[in-house]
Amino acid sequence: MERVYNFSAGPSVLPMPVLEKAQKELVNYGSAGMSVMEMSHRSKVYVEIFDNTEARLRKLMNIPDNYKVLFLQGGASMQFAMIPMNLMVNKKADYLNTGEFAGKAIGEAKKYGSVNVVASSEDKKYTYTPEIDPAKFDKNADYFHMTSNNTIFGTKHTEYPTTGAVPLVVDMSSNILSEVYDVSKFGLIYAGAQKNMACAGVTVVIIREDLIERSDDNLALMLSYKVMAEQKSMYNTPPCYSIYIAGLVFEWLLNMGGVPAIQKVNEEKAKILYDYIDESKLFSNPVVKKDRSMMNVPFVTGNTELDDKFIKEAEKAGFVNLKGHRIVGGMRASIYNAMPVEGIKALVGFMKDFEVNNK
Amino acid sequence: MERVYNFSAGPSVLPMPVLEKAQKELVNYGSAGMSVMEMSHRSKVYVEIFDNTEARLRKLMNIPDNYKVLFLQGGASMQFAMIPMNLMVNKKADYLNTGEFAGKAIGEAKKYGSVNVVASSEDKKYTYTPEIDPAKFDKNADYFHMTSNNTIFGTKHTEYPTTGAVPLVVDMSSNILSEVYDVSKFGLIYAGAQKNMACAGVTVVIIREDLIERSDDNLALMLSYKVMAEQKSMYNTPPCYSIYIAGLVFEWLLNMGGVPAIQKVNEEKAKILYDYIDESKLFSNPVVKKDRSMMNVPFVTGNTELDDKFIKEAEKAGFVNLKGHRIVGGMRASIYNAMPVEGIKALVGFMKDFEVNNK
Repeated sequence: MERVYNFSAGPSVLPMPVLEKAQKELVNYGSAGMSVMEMSHRSKVYVEIFDNTEARLRKLMNIPDNYKVLFLQGGASMQFAMIPMNLMVNKKADYLNTGEFAGKAIGEAKKYGSVNVVASSEDKKYTYTPEIDPAKFDKNADYFHMTSNNTIFGTKHTEYPTTGAVPLVVDMSSNILSEVYDVSKFGLIYAGAQKNMACAGVTVVIIREDLIERSDDNLALMLSYKVMAEQKSMYNTPPCYSIYIAGLVFEWLLNMGGVPAIQKVNEEKAKILYDYIDESKLFSNPVVKKDRSMMNVPFVTGNTELDDKFIKEAEKAGFVNLKGHRIVGGMRASIYNAMPVEGIKALVGFMKDFEVNNK
Repeated sequence: MERVYNFSAGPSVLPMPVLEKAQKELVNYGSAGMSVMEMSHRSKVYVEIFDNTEARLRKLMNIPDNYKVLFLQGGASMQFAMIPMNLMVNKKADYLNTGEFAGKAIGEAKKYGSVNVVASSEDKKYTYTPEIDPAKFDKNADYFHMTSNNTIFGTKHTEYPTTGAVPLVVDMSSNILSEVYDVSKFGLIYAGAQKNMACAGVTVVIIREDLIERSDDNLALMLSYKVMAEQKSMYNTPPCYSIYIAGLVFEWLLNMGGVPAIQKVNEEKAKILYDYIDESKLFSNPVVKKDRSMMNVPFVTGNTELDDKFIKEAEKAGFVNLKGHRIVGGMRASIYNAMPVEGIKALVGFMKDFEVNNK
């Protein structure tokens, strides 16, 4: 069975060396005599896997010592609620509204306090990232929340606001590890694993230590950053296997030179695809050029029937999950770290042929 | 590399046919051209895996149509909070205190309302299941909570109270699918997967439909049974791979004749181990006979040094994770569905030799 090129927005393509290693180790991990799936999370062999996973992520992102790394469950959607639950002390926060998930984060935060929407790109269907006017910041905000990359609309922030004492909280679900970020600029970074890190089931939270102290003792234990930090993400059984897969992905990334190396590959991949779309007479991308995502590339023909035809023929040719999100329509190629340059070149080749055949 | 006999309390041993199938399918699932880990949870191929998993569980447990099956995250510990969050309308509930996890469930429930502890076995270190006196029930309780099997102390309820209109909520984490239960007697059954169902990362909640209506609209979306039921557990990305493994385990169980068949095997396994412990002059089990767990068998020599020696030598001989929980000490053999009879016979053989050698 041949593998397809999988452009899914998440869960998404994983590196072949990771899948092959996971396959090899599935029934018997090293000399453990059992699968990683069967290991007690308190056993020496599993704790080593877990610790290595965290150490690799710390190395990849150059995470300062005054940050904790948590491996939680529930995805970014659970964080949309856990963030206000844990961090809202004054019961107010600043948010940017730059897309579907940013909006969901706002919706959850409103259950716990008042939300000040500093800027929004809703007016133009989220096809750009809005200017951020510091005059609109609430100086008493408990934090400032934004989404680094908008998966559905294919936009990305290139600049980050200076928020002073107000910690910057960023949902990096769809572009964590795709380019270099300075973790020290952020109070909290979170990301569901199923795009650039692992299979679904684990959520990474990187949190500055002072923020952990905000967690109220009356929170449900599973929802408390403080409890999870104190218990090293093992208050209860963590999602062991997803964490193991994350560890393999981190290892793969380190072996290829880390985030700076994959960033170059990602820039090359995005350039190939956007350059062709821009020169194409058939396909177009609706996003303001400077705000284009390096991970999620939406495009349309302008004709929904032709879009459908493209998606169908692409699938037959081995390019799958190219259908755009129902809110946007058209097509979307999610080109995460694990999508090789060859996949982009092959896709562009297919698009070119389609354009010629559908003049 | 030879496989060991793994007596871990959880995560724990999985059936070999499941591991072998998962291994075979890891890089390429059927004709999908990708791993299950890489599949969009909205894709046809994954939705089929998901639906089959639910259908198999419904068949195995004979789940009535007026119950929803949810696949959630966070383990039983998350349910300890979600249950009171969702079901407490009058802000009061009845609980049994029969062990560590029952106690944790009580601790979380107290954050959301008042808890009436109907009965406790704390007086004798949880070595029995207490008599339940209906006179102590609160008729206005929102639900009655108990733990079917106490993993750490090795006890099991053989009788269930008649609670009338008050729904019975049961944590079945450590013995779900090990013996036949009549689901219609319960309002809500929940279980972390990592003992009898799958690898860690997914939690099954079986909930009677009328109870779903209790969820308040102000709950965080990820914590609402109503939202999760309406969205068929896919409000956001579910823990896809753990669910897939659960589906394989359910398939394995159906192939061997379902729960009645495995119950017979489990009864045989438990009998072999308890019979030997009872006739042994060295080993003993502290639990009242009628309340003994069929899944978790604690035992001691009465001498902590000898316990340590046993654990060490057992490990060398390929019997691993036999160390008892720190609260109880000594040894514990967790003998879930996937532990074959041969494993029990081999363990008893080893114990007999150890007894002879350590007179």
